[in-house]
This record gives sequence, structure tokens and C-alpha cells, in this order.
Amino acid sequence: MRDFLPEDVRRREYVIGIVSSIYQRYGFEPLETPALENIETLTGKYGEEGNKLIFKVLRRGEHESSGETDLALRYDLTVPLARVVAEYRGTLPKYFKRYQIQPVWRADRPARGRFREFYQCDVDAIGSRSPVVETEMLAAVSEVLVKLGFDDFTIQLNHRQLLTATLNRAGVEPPLHTTALVALDKLDKIGVDGVFEEMVSRNVPHHAAQAVLDNVGSGEFGSFPDQPGAAAAENLGEIMNLCESTAAAGHVKFAPFLARGLSYYTGAIMEVTVPDLAGSLGGGGRYDGLIGMFLGEDVPACGFSLGLERILVVMTERKMFPPEIEQASADVLLTLFDRSTVPEALKLAAELRAAGIRVEVYPEPDKLGKQMKYASSRKIRFAAILGGDEIARGEVTIKNLDTGEQKTMPHPAVADLVKTSK
Amino acid sequence: MRDFLPEDVRRREYVIGIVSSIYQRYGFEPLETPALENIETLTGKYGEEGNKLIFKVLRRGEHESSGETDLALRYDLTVPLARVVAEYRGTLPKYFKRYQIQPVWRADRPARGRFREFYQCDVDAIGSRSPVVETEMLAAVSEVLVKLGFDDFTIQLNHRQLLTATLNRAGVEPPLHTTALVALDKLDKIGVDGVFEEMVSRNVPHHAAQAVLDNVGSGEFGSFPDQPGAAAAENLGEIMNLCESTAAAGHVKFAPFLARGLSYYTGAIMEVTVPDLAGSLGGGGRYDGLIGMFLGEDVPACGFSLGLERILVVMTERKMFPPEIEQASADVLLTLFDRSTVPEALKLAAELRAAGIRVEVYPEPDKLGKQMKYASSRKIRFAAILGGDEIARGEVTIKNLDTGEQKTMPHPAVADLVKTSK
Repeated sequence: MRDFLPEDVRRREYVIGIVSSIYQRYGFEPLETPALENIETLTGKYGEEGNKLIFKVLRRGEHESSGETDLALRYDLTVPLARVVAEYRGTLPKYFKRYQIQPVWRADRPARGRFREFYQCDVDAIGSRSPVVETEMLAAVSEVLVKLGFDDFTIQLNHRQLLTATLNRAGVEPPLHTTALVALDKLDKIGVDGVFEEMVSRNVPHHAAQAVLDNVGSGEFGSFPDQPGAAAAENLGEIMNLCESTAAAGHVKFAPFLARGLSYYTGAIMEVTVPDLAGSLGGGGRYDGLIGMFLGEDVPACGFSLGLERILVVMTERKMFPPEIEQASADVLLTLFDRSTVPEALKLAAELRAAGIRVEVYPEPDKLGKQMKYASSRKIRFAAILGGDEIARGEVTIKNLDTGEQKTMPHPAVADLVKTSK
Repeated sequence: MRDFLPEDVRRREYVIGIVSSIYQRYGFEPLETPALENIETLTGKYGEEGNKLIFKVLRRGEHESSGETDLALRYDLTVPLARVVAEYRGTLPKYFKRYQIQPVWRADRPARGRFREFYQCDVDAIGSRSPVVETEMLAAVSEVLVKLGFDDFTIQLNHRQLLTATLNRAGVEPPLHTTALVALDKLDKIGVDGVFEEMVSRNVPHHAAQAVLDNVGSGEFGSFPDQPGAAAAENLGEIMNLCESTAAAGHVKFAPFLARGLSYYTGAIMEVTVPDLAGSLGGGGRYDGLIGMFLGEDVPACGFSLGLERILVVMTERKMFPPEIEQASADVLLTLFDRSTVPEALKLAAELRAAGIRVEVYPEPDKLGKQMKYASSRKIRFAAILGGDEIARGEVTIKNLDTGEQKTMPHPAVADLVKTSK
């Protein structure tokens, strides 16, 4: 697990700040749930592999020696959302639109880009089956990405019922649907021939596998004699059409091979990609069967998860952060001349801070050279010097540590100088 | 443990936003550490009682059945800071000033205002023994409190070495110092007589107990023949004097009875109080022996912990949050007239959002009355209606749901209306 040093936190908060402000502008509201859930809330929800990756917490006090566990660390943000929807049923609005940005914990073996504590960044809209829901979600995600500086993203869009109808029409028996979808989902990695071979090796008949690939490969929704297929094609068409009236315009593309691994999707599925990155920046879809798990009924829901950790990696590699995020925390290092000048220095610090300048006061009246060296090592751009002469004249000397330029000026001029040279 | 519903999160983020922006203006930098630490990092650091309250995490995989634990949940923010200071010794600046706002977990029995998951909000300055450190910290805390709306706070200030010198001079033997300090700290609860009785009942001699109370009760620093006492008095005087040049001016008061429970303080100690609240809004002090625990050496440090949960309770009770925090997440509910008008509605939503307005789009073209009712139930102040007539004229009808007033206007006028009626 990772410590986030100041530079890391500033980058993370910059991204999280943009995500939340845009989501709020779309009427999504923030939710936070506790790190610990009752263990029975989590077990059995993530499959057998998932169960093994849950961090379990020992019972306390007299029960500690029993080795029993009663609590577990949040594994994702979807199950806690389902619990909240059941628990606050009477309180939450009919159309509950929430975003949630919190860490989750998985006892995976750590690897490059994989951590045992990592942040998820989920947005979900609950309560409606309208295609306006998918459209608004894709519009919000698009605006987030544009604001972060990703202009070249594509939203890959497909539909689970469309895939199901295609498989049915091609003659793949329902018990083999998951197998076929898993193979299909690998097309960009293993190619058409690879997908064909994987399907056949897993008992999909030759002719059916070929028909699937022909169908999907046509890149058309296709027409379906069966109602679910036709409805899915209409739904997908409507979402794509509505997106053209939003910030997602020009970014949405029908992706007939997109299947997405998780089995719980029931409608539109989506994934965001950029050309130079394998894998996606995020994905989601409609899943009408999951959120009601603690209520025992279907609750319409559509969600999207932004890959926050991956976005941070790409933005760092591409140097996409604005300079003020990469700079040191302080704009000015206020040096201390000698003990007698400290009160005047503190007054100047208060004035500058009131003008919105971030000021670090060097704590001790050390040699000036040492203080200057400290400012440079901290990448602080300006040093302020306040000696007896300056105090007598109501002025302060400001040294620009990038250029070496030094100038004496009245106090109020400092804020202007710092702000204009940003 | 608590779920934070949208209204709660908005309040928390408002307070956290002010705290971090002010701390940053003082040159403090953000730090975040993982929720889980190796168990040996935490055990033995919080006394016997503390040990029992640590949430311990079971080992995973093949070791799960052993009932052994290897990780534990963060119990405070000070021990992780000490670990970070040791681990990143070469990377961190000589004067490391950090703030950290993260949850901690304690297996306490939950009670009113006590939670098993709660946020701590710590600020610490490491590396200097200068009184400028305490002064700057108190200035920052003062600015945070003023910005939050607490104008009537007092910073109670005392000094551990001053207390020690006072006890020595009064004739309390060093092994009884902790006992005497614990009694003294209760003065506001049990009065002078109560403190006297508690000291005597715990083997402090009558004459010594009386001398302590006389001394402390004089409200003067006193003069000390011994060097540590004199140095402490000088240090305290200098901090109080310097504070008058900062945002803490007028708030600092010498508090001769203040002792603070924790044993690790080595210098100035402080606590912030408001008149109508028992207990404090936060406290801290200098503790030069603790941060170096993993380095095996003394590292000068001074810290202050704001009682975030308590501040939130008081601010909620006193209704100190600005109206925009208490309001619903959206400014405008955009109603849907019928299916054909959805694209135009989405375009209008995009325009309003680009102007900084938070817009929730009702997901379905329901009856208008139903959509209006929903807006009211969500406390959204404006509803936008975009029918065929409005679309033809490039206009939109806006209903103010507080006043019932309804007006048709061109699109760009909506943002002005919403902003000016905030």
C-alpha cells in the first residue's frame, strides 16, 4: 500500500476536484460509506476468487482469541451502494444519482499499477430505465475527460441484449453465452482468428462461432426478429442519437465486440479508450438486477466507474497537470532576518496570506544564504527579505529564485508580483 | 459506523475545504497514509487500553485459518507520520509541515458523538524548536476557526516544563508529577477543592498540594531559580508575544491549569475552547520525543489536532453552514415535455452547466405535475419547462418553486436568474 506524499496528494485532489464538480453539475450527489462493513454484507457477492481477496477483521476483546471475523474492508463501491439503497429506502429520492470516490481494499498480490488499497470513482443513477440516464452519464464522463485534458477519447458502446440476440441468432446455446462473450471481449488482443479458436475450443460449434463473428463483424446493429434484440437495437440507437446533443457528441462509437467481463450487465455497456493506451480509462453499463440485492427486487440502475488510478498514471506520464499543481506548496518563503524582526515578518505573512498568497515562514533567523538555499531546494519561487531597513521604510525585498532578480517594493505590490508571474 | 448521505458529505467537504486551504496558505502540505499499517507499527504505541481498541486484520489465503493477524487499521495520524518521517528521511524537507485529514478506527463501544470510524484532522510541523512554529500553528488554527464562523474562541496556553518546574518548587516528588497533572487538568470540572482532595488522596503531601494550587492559582508564570522553569516561562512569553502579530491576536490566554492528558508533550501545550461548549474544539502542543520513535532519536515537533467531528456537530447545531451547502445538489430541475423534445432539453442542460449551473434532468417525460412535485420534494429551487412553443421561440419557461412565479425567457437569462437569486 502506498503513502501519498504532498505532490501525490495535490495531483489526486486536482483530479478528484474536477470529477466531483462536474458530476455535481449533472445533479449527482456525493455519498460516503464506512471502510468496514459487516462481513456477511460482502461475502458471496464477488464470486469465489473475490471472497479470497476480502480483508477480514478479527473480532475484538474476549472474542479476539477465537480467530473469528465479523467485519470486512470495503471491496468495491457497488455493494455498499446496494446496502444504502435498501437501508435508506424511505429517505433517498426516487431517482438517486450519486457519486462516490473512496478507497477499496483487495488482498491481491501487488504488481505494477496494482495496489491493495486503491480509489474507486463511481457514478450511478438509480430508479429509471430511460435512455436519458445513459446519455447523461456519458455526457458527464465526457465533460470530466475533456476538463482533465483528454480530447482524443472514444466511448465504445454496445448492449448486452444485442449480444444475446446475436448469439441466439447465430445458434449459440444459452449455456455457452458467457463463454462466447468472454472470447469476444478479447478480440482486440487475440484477433478474429483467436476468438474463433477460443470459442470452438470451448464447445461453441464451428458454424455458430463463424456466424457470431460474421454478424458482429458487420458493424451493424442488425435486425432481429425477436423482441429483445429489436428493443436493444432501438435502445442503443436512441442513446447514440441523444448523445449527439451533449458533451459526448462525436465521441460515441458502436463497438460490436465490446462485451465487458462482469456478468451483471443487463443493457447498454460502455468503455472509454484513448488511442495510445491499452485497456480503458473507465467503463460501465446498465445493471438492473444488482442494486436491489438487499431488497429482493429489481431496481433499475446504470453506473460508470472511472479508472482514477490509471488516469493519474497517464496524466503524470503525459505531464497533463497544470504548473501550480506540480509546484511546491508555498509561493513565498519569508526569511527571518534576526530575532527582533520576527513580529514584523509575521505581520507581513498575515498580509500576504490575506491576499491569497501561500507563505511559508522560515522558522529560525538562520544565515540568509541558508534560508535561500532552503527555498530553492523546496522549489519555492520567491523569497522575501525583511531587514531593519525594509521595515523602517515599510517595504520588503523580493527575490525571484528562478531568475535571481531582486527588487524592493511596498508590501501590497508583493501579491501582484506573485500572481502575475504565475 | 456511519454512512454519510449527500447532505452530510457536503457539510464535511465544506469544513475540510476551508481547513486545507488555510493550512496550505501557511505552507503546510497534504499527506495521506494507507488505512492499513503493519501490525507491529501500531502495537505498543497507544498503551494497554489502546492496544485493545486496534482493529486487527486476519492474514489471508493459506494463513487465514491460523487466526493470525498481520495488518491493523490506522488508529491515529501521529504514528503513521512518525513512520513516514523515518521512511522518507532523505526525501522530506528539513522543516516538514504537513496536514492530514483521514479517518481512523477504534474499537470503542459506540456512544453519542463517539464513533468507531471518525476523521482526524492533524497539522504538524517537524524539525524546529523555534517559537515561530507554535505561533504559526496557532495563527493557522485561528484563521480556520474564524473562517468557519467561530469568532468567540479562546486559545488556552500552558507549558509542560513550566508545570514541571511548578511541581518541583512546590515539593511534589517527580514520581507523583503525572498524578498531580491529571488532578490539575480536572480543575474546570471538580474545582480547586476537588483538585486538592484528589492530589492528597493520591499521596501528594498536603503542603505540596496547597503550594501547587497557590502557585498555579496566581495566574502568573512565576519566576524560577532553575533553568528549565525559567526557559519555559521565557518560551511561553515569546509565543504569546509573537501571537499578537498574527491571526491569533486577542485569542491567546495563559491557562495555568491546562495539563492535557497525554504524557508525550515536552513544551507548550494548547487547547481551543468556546464559551458554550464543554470540552475543546481541538488541542495540541510540542512533543519532541515522539516523531523520532522509528529513527531512535529526538526530532523536534509541534502538532495540533482539530476536533473535526465535534466542529461538525457544533456547526450543525448552531446552523453555521452557508445556505448553498444546506440546499439540494441541483439548482434547476429540467423537466421533459415529451420524447421529441429530449434532444433540445439536453442541449439546454449543456448550456446551463457550461454557465456553472447545476442541472438535474428528470429522466422520463412524465406528467408535468409529477415532475414539479419531484423538484419540490428534492428542494430544487427552479424548474425549467421546454415545450414545443418554447423551443420554436428559442426560449424556456422557468418556475421559481419557492415563490410559484413563472416566467418565459431566452436561454442565457436563466443562468443570471439562478445566480442572482442565490
